[in-house]
Amino acid sequence: MNKLFFRNDYGEGAHPIVLRKLTETNMEHTCGYGLDAYSLRAAELIREKCGKPEADVHMMVGGTSANMIALSSFMRPYEAAIAAETGHINVHETGTIEGSGHKVCIAASKDGKVLPEGVRAVVNAHTDEHMVHPRVVYISQPTEIGTVYSLEELRALRAVCDELDLILFADGARLGSALTASEATATLQDMAALTDAFYIGGTKNGLYFGEALVIVNPALQKNFRFMIKNRGGMIAKGRLCGVMFLAALENDDYFAWARHANAMADIIREGMERAGIAQFIKTTTNQVFPVITREQEKALAEKVEFEHWGDVDDERVAVRFVTSWATKEEDVRALCAELEAL
Amino acid sequence: MNKLFFRNDYGEGAHPIVLRKLTETNMEHTCGYGLDAYSLRAAELIREKCGKPEADVHMMVGGTSANMIALSSFMRPYEAAIAAETGHINVHETGTIEGSGHKVCIAASKDGKVLPEGVRAVVNAHTDEHMVHPRVVYISQPTEIGTVYSLEELRALRAVCDELDLILFADGARLGSALTASEATATLQDMAALTDAFYIGGTKNGLYFGEALVIVNPALQKNFRFMIKNRGGMIAKGRLCGVMFLAALENDDYFAWARHANAMADIIREGMERAGIAQFIKTTTNQVFPVITREQEKALAEKVEFEHWGDVDDERVAVRFVTSWATKEEDVRALCAELEAL
Amino acid sequence: MNKLFFRNDYGEGAHPIVLRKLTETNMEHTCGYGLDAYSLRAAELIREKCGKPEADVHMMVGGTSANMIALSSFMRPYEAAIAAETGHINVHETGTIEGSGHKVCIAASKDGKVLPEGVRAVVNAHTDEHMVHPRVVYISQPTEIGTVYSLEELRALRAVCDELDLILFADGARLGSALTASEATATLQDMAALTDAFYIGGTKNGLYFGEALVIVNPALQKNFRFMIKNRGGMIAKGRLCGVMFLAALENDDYFAWARHANAMADIIREGMERAGIAQFIKTTTNQVFPVITREQEKALAEKVEFEHWGDVDDERVAVRFVTSWATKEEDVRALCAELEAL
Amino acid sequence: MNKLFFRNDYGEGAHPIVLRKLTETNMEHTCGYGLDAYSLRAAELIREKCGKPEADVHMMVGGTSANMIALSSFMRPYEAAIAAETGHINVHETGTIEGSGHKVCIAASKDGKVLPEGVRAVVNAHTDEHMVHPRVVYISQPTEIGTVYSLEELRALRAVCDELDLILFADGARLGSALTASEATATLQDMAALTDAFYIGGTKNGLYFGEALVIVNPALQKNFRFMIKNRGGMIAKGRLCGVMFLAALENDDYFAWARHANAMADIIREGMERAGIAQFIKTTTNQVFPVITREQEKALAEKVEFEHWGDVDDERVAVRFVTSWATKEEDVRALCAELEAL
Repeated sequence: MNKLFFRNDYGEGAHPIVLRKLTETNMEHTCGYGLDAYSLRAAELIREKCGKPEADVHMMVGGTSANMIALSSFMRPYEAAIAAETGHINVHETGTIEGSGHKVCIAASKDGKVLPEGVRAVVNAHTDEHMVHPRVVYISQPTEIGTVYSLEELRALRAVCDELDLILFADGARLGSALTASEATATLQDMAALTDAFYIGGTKNGLYFGEALVIVNPALQKNFRFMIKNRGGMIAKGRLCGVMFLAALENDDYFAWARHANAMADIIREGMERAGIAQFIKTTTNQVFPVITREQEKALAEKVEFEHWGDVDDERVAVRFVTSWATKEEDVRALCAELEAL
Repeated sequence: MNKLFFRNDYGEGAHPIVLRKLTETNMEHTCGYGLDAYSLRAAELIREKCGKPEADVHMMVGGTSANMIALSSFMRPYEAAIAAETGHINVHETGTIEGSGHKVCIAASKDGKVLPEGVRAVVNAHTDEHMVHPRVVYISQPTEIGTVYSLEELRALRAVCDELDLILFADGARLGSALTASEATATLQDMAALTDAFYIGGTKNGLYFGEALVIVNPALQKNFRFMIKNRGGMIAKGRLCGVMFLAALENDDYFAWARHANAMADIIREGMERAGIAQFIKTTTNQVFPVITREQEKALAEKVEFEHWGDVDDERVAVRFVTSWATKEEDVRALCAELEAL
Repeated sequence: MNKLFFRNDYGEGAHPIVLRKLTETNMEHTCGYGLDAYSLRAAELIREKCGKPEADVHMMVGGTSANMIALSSFMRPYEAAIAAETGHINVHETGTIEGSGHKVCIAASKDGKVLPEGVRAVVNAHTDEHMVHPRVVYISQPTEIGTVYSLEELRALRAVCDELDLILFADGARLGSALTASEATATLQDMAALTDAFYIGGTKNGLYFGEALVIVNPALQKNFRFMIKNRGGMIAKGRLCGVMFLAALENDDYFAWARHANAMADIIREGMERAGIAQFIKTTTNQVFPVITREQEKALAEKVEFEHWGDVDDERVAVRFVTSWATKEEDVRALCAELEAL
Repeated sequence: MNKLFFRNDYGEGAHPIVLRKLTETNMEHTCGYGLDAYSLRAAELIREKCGKPEADVHMMVGGTSANMIALSSFMRPYEAAIAAETGHINVHETGTIEGSGHKVCIAASKDGKVLPEGVRAVVNAHTDEHMVHPRVVYISQPTEIGTVYSLEELRALRAVCDELDLILFADGARLGSALTASEATATLQDMAALTDAFYIGGTKNGLYFGEALVIVNPALQKNFRFMIKNRGGMIAKGRLCGVMFLAALENDDYFAWARHANAMADIIREGMERAGIAQFIKTTTNQVFPVITREQEKALAEKVEFEHWGDVDDERVAVRFVTSWATKEEDVRALCAELEAL
């Protein structure tokens, strides 16, 4: 018997709607490298939804690649990014930012969210040419640990960036989940209005792969396709991303899928509450972090696929359940039953 | 009415066999980043077909990315690659090799093929620590201009690499076409036996994307997955490449598709001969380079999609037709009719 | 009237003994780039004094350059250095390590000294190819804040490096001061025996410029001159470093100068004690960190050149006095008088 | 008996005038990193002599370092330099430009001088984002092979750079020799007026080390000190370069020394003419390239230190004699006698 799958949100292929459009368009001839009609229409659609007719939209193959190419394009060699200690670029990208020549400076954060005063402190600590020059504030919406920046928090970061001449960049690998979470106050248009650049993650919300990078700030747009190619991020059949993003966005299914993932996670959160299991970090997105004992973890692992997140104390650990567009309610109910039976 | 499409071999989606397997496996849960069972089986199958049970096989997202990650993994910072002037890494990758810190030295070549004496001359010209240290010989099989290294030529390059302590690396973006061309004398097993590393190109032979990099030399294998991630080349749904390569290779369809592409190109070559049109470069693979007049080019462009390759003289130009697994014989016949009518 | 100068240990030119040897040899003809007889003799002398006849010795133009070239030579692209938060490479080199592609991971430290358990914790936290691979432990002897690793502490670091397959690298910009401090227990030979590579700093102890990098571990020696040149660190008149290090070392004056600097700092420390002024960090080397009030700092700045180090609390600050081979005892006495008069 | 020394122009220490000023100022206290009064005065003096009151002047430790730091500061990651095949950055810097991420494209040249039509051809050949974007034209004044760009030639390069939006950068490692050669038509002020940036070489004209980089174009000036530090090119005792350049320039001795070197080379050229020895490349600067037979080379090497330059044909070779501020007329006469006796 198969285990219940809550390991991640990239464990399946593509949403059937995406797959259908890929199949329907499969034998059409297009030019390569993302200059085809599908990619152009997807970009146009994204500009419209963002309310940013002048934005540049580029289809990137993955989140790590998008982060590295964008940040290394936006910075001069001596400039640095600012991130939370838990930031994906700081921990889980094998040093791609440093690999492209840039330091990642750690700012104080709360619940995985970079604090404006943390940004200010980093800038104040870098006083002259013997230190790096902080230039980009990197945030994830939602964060690595599933929390969501409120509209107010984004505005505060925008303000500190304006004041200190910093670029605000948002990693949106799970952006759909953030925008449709119960606590969400910032919309897609807010993301576009408040950041200099951000991306709409496809890999973790129904696409085979692909992140739609939206470069809002015109000063950062020049020759970006050269950067993509120079960093190895341009694929020949670029039209695939165009087709997939069109499929996901033309009827706003993208948001429906994310809403589904969040709803499935909500059921888990309710089940945990019933079972008296605490959350390590309180989230409203598609990642849930129960605190259980080592014995419970072991027992659960017999029936469920999930990730060990970390040790809480000598007895207890935090684990992670992730839901997605592909998560079935029956599996979630079964998981809750397991939790209550622990 | 649609034009006849001979622009490139990446103008469609995936071969139906590939698409079917992707669809069949779509809702299965797997772990990410290429460590799933499909990727492992595909790697194992490739090792078997190569006759190299100890080889490392990694699925790369594209050719430029594969070239850059492999070469920058194989070289120390002061080391350089050797390539033909027409080499893809020298011309058409926006400086990714240099972007990863390495010079590309140009060796004398004939028909796009690096000459052993050209390699030797480059090495001899680099005498001390004030110059780069040539380390990797980069070839493409087939070359950028569609020619094929014979088994003898590969052996001669291997010999000079052994003598001069160089690594031999083969870009196989169109490897299928090279291995199944009428003039082919080197097999897949020869590629594995004679190079230190090479790849089996998927993007241009029926896959959505993906190049299967085979690292034969054990000295070059260590920690390569760190390199892939560090350079932004690892995608979350890595299983896609596994599934696609399995679909293409488990019944050797990969070679059938390539053989089809070559056969279609052969028909074009025959048509050209009948029409009295010369080849700019003589090829037996899926790229054909007719020499026609400017007027003929203009007339042809009304009905056919193809690429302008370059000027031959004041009156004549070279153009490029490319065939693929997706090319229909009726389209090829129609193209021949157009050529004969010029 | 000139202020008393305690700002740094690189505020003057070269020690007269160095200057004399430069002058005496000035018109001799030598070959360039550090392959002259002076450089070779200096390297040989350093090997002897280190008790490491097989070590490679390279003359580097400065500390930042030496750190960057050595570390980027020792590491593959995905590998990272481990340093104390106060480490020079982490703070004061404008991201040269990241600029060469490598992350700097912060290990727990005490009094500026990297702790073996801090090293172990960093390594344990990096578990797979989604994270950098820690490879080099970077320490400074003495540390940025003037403290000295004891022989026992160095042995403990060596042990953890051996256990975890790490390289131990020591920045010796002020090595003379560390080796001759009253609390010193590690000798030059210990440095050579316990590290994989380290350097003997010239710039801050009597030379115009120059750091003698000693690569003890044979596995790290190959083609290092290519690295120096590739990173822009090789100068044409390389013989200058050879001449200067010979002047400094042939009669062990290097250590006498460092001892003098420490003795001058000892007098300041005694004066502080008499004046009831606390040390921010307890040191026995040529940097002294008094804690004084803002008013005292202001008053002192009228008569003394020194650096503001940081704020201790609302009222008090830490400042830094640095002594060197060039510091005169009368100036130190005058400084003490000022301190006692505060 | 010592051989006559014509191997290079960096075989001795510093000119006595430079040495004297270093000695006189040796015990003065200054701040570090090139912000001292000497460095500032030297920069001001250079601005005056260049007729460019708004230029930025930075003291670099060496030519390779200056080339790499300037070019990597001026270019974005996908941009490339254009150089002659013989260009120092293309051949003799161990790939520092590529090491900083940038390709060097080769332009057609004549007598080592980049041709405007060569620049144009490189730009025209780079048409889209699949290729690097040429951005900087790198020239040396004089060239690697001792030839000098005339005022007219420089104007033609400036014109093509203006037309094609390129930066013109001049490596002036031997600038003194170029400006004082008998065929010189371009002055220091012309260099400043026609390039975006260039440097005045100190290492090869009387200084221990140091190249004064003049960044004329304000768009290239921002945060350059961050770049110097980030690339490892900033030394603590930066005042040394200030002192040395002041010594060399305050009475225009710099030009007198270069004139002397050229005059010594002129005597060699006259001697060669008398001896019936051809020049491999015709020069008027401090490098002379006689064509002699292999036997003559061997005989000469018994008494003279010089460099083998290359093979001319089966019998004849080109060798190189270099003169400098340190070359004595008696040695030149002795060399001529040897040549005539061959």
